[in-house]
Amino acid sequence: MKERIRISEIFGPTVQGEGPLIGRPTVFVRTGGCDYRCSWCDTLYAVLPEYHDEWALMTPADIMARVDELAGGNPALVTLSGGNPALHPLASLIALGRRNGHTFALETQGSVAQPWFAELDWLVLSPKPPSSGMTTDWDAFEACLQAARGRPPCVLKIVIFNDADYSYAQTVAVRYPALPVYLQVGNPAPLTAVGGTLADESDVDDLLQRFRWLVGKVTADHWFAAKVLPQLHVLAWGNKRGV
Amino acid sequence: MKERIRISEIFGPTVQGEGPLIGRPTVFVRTGGCDYRCSWCDTLYAVLPEYHDEWALMTPADIMARVDELAGGNPALVTLSGGNPALHPLASLIALGRRNGHTFALETQGSVAQPWFAELDWLVLSPKPPSSGMTTDWDAFEACLQAARGRPPCVLKIVIFNDADYSYAQTVAVRYPALPVYLQVGNPAPLTAVGGTLADESDVDDLLQRFRWLVGKVTADHWFAAKVLPQLHVLAWGNKRGV
Repeated sequence: MKERIRISEIFGPTVQGEGPLIGRPTVFVRTGGCDYRCSWCDTLYAVLPEYHDEWALMTPADIMARVDELAGGNPALVTLSGGNPALHPLASLIALGRRNGHTFALETQGSVAQPWFAELDWLVLSPKPPSSGMTTDWDAFEACLQAARGRPPCVLKIVIFNDADYSYAQTVAVRYPALPVYLQVGNPAPLTAVGGTLADESDVDDLLQRFRWLVGKVTADHWFAAKVLPQLHVLAWGNKRGV
Repeated sequence: MKERIRISEIFGPTVQGEGPLIGRPTVFVRTGGCDYRCSWCDTLYAVLPEYHDEWALMTPADIMARVDELAGGNPALVTLSGGNPALHPLASLIALGRRNGHTFALETQGSVAQPWFAELDWLVLSPKPPSSGMTTDWDAFEACLQAARGRPPCVLKIVIFNDADYSYAQTVAVRYPALPVYLQVGNPAPLTAVGGTLADESDVDDLLQRFRWLVGKVTADHWFAAKVLPQLHVLAWGNKRGV
């Protein structure tokens, strides 16, 4: 296959800091480019076209060679993230990696469906709540679920900053009762201008306060099916890249 | 059934802060009494005989009434912890709770096997590493696994304070390759005298430093099968009881 994929960064192994695979060692493959512009995006360097020159066009073989190097030749969990990785032709990459024993988790907002979703080991769908400024296209989201064809476990991961986000998550959970729901504490990393950087330091006290608030909401509602998690990597490393 | 169970505390719902069920809302039922005396035990009030007078003898029906009250009448995940909950006759409690739609996770060091382990939804076995000062009886541990009869998912949760603990975890993982392994960052809550209390405040910086150290060990070893997690409840609430 000759297709090339626009890559923002490949790094690891580190542990997955969020969602259903929290705590698992993984190598991240982050694609460049996104169809969304979330107000609180913490990976603008993988989203905005102004960063286009920093993205490398790589073949699946190039990418997998780097993943294998980082994984020390071991079978690894590979996390495909972005930006929106569903914008890219990742079928060959997944097929190639699987031959090396790797497993694949994809994180996407669920705005673009791809037939190769069915070849994943995990599909983490993260529809964006009101605080993002984005509007969910539920037909597109449904198409993502259909594309998975019941093969990989599909889960919902919804970022929660405020009451409106929480209500949105409740609505999504009602709409998809069969999908496990992970509520993720929002990280109010300040939106920085192009060329700027996020503050490396996260405000751990603030993040833990937000976690306690969200736990309080969920337990007061006796919402036993929801899972509440912070972003461990932000607690541990702030907003640094590469961890 | 007329048996009574010695209960240290029943509280919740809060979220499970550790292990395979991290982030899940749950009601905790903590039994009193333990056959271990771990050097870093953070629940001595449920371990030491000096606290015996604080423990209530409750029937399964009493316990379940309190759980139902806390759960607001909803089916809940009930976490059976201690002390060592495997010292107690919990079969009737589990059967009663299941009729109300509850699911049950047990946390035990794996020193005492019970036939009702097979009735659980999760068996979290937490053999204690060298830093605890305890020695694992592997025959007893094996008996716990056998008692589960392949029904509930069984996982290993091993607390890691230092290199010796880490080596111990590696050995356990080799011994039980089929069991998922959760490595848990040690919480150096100071051992307090009877009647004393733990400092409510945890040292979040220290705990996060320990987390980074453990992630560094696991990723340097390319130990992709291990999961690395802190205790979220300690990060969020310190060593306070009842959360």
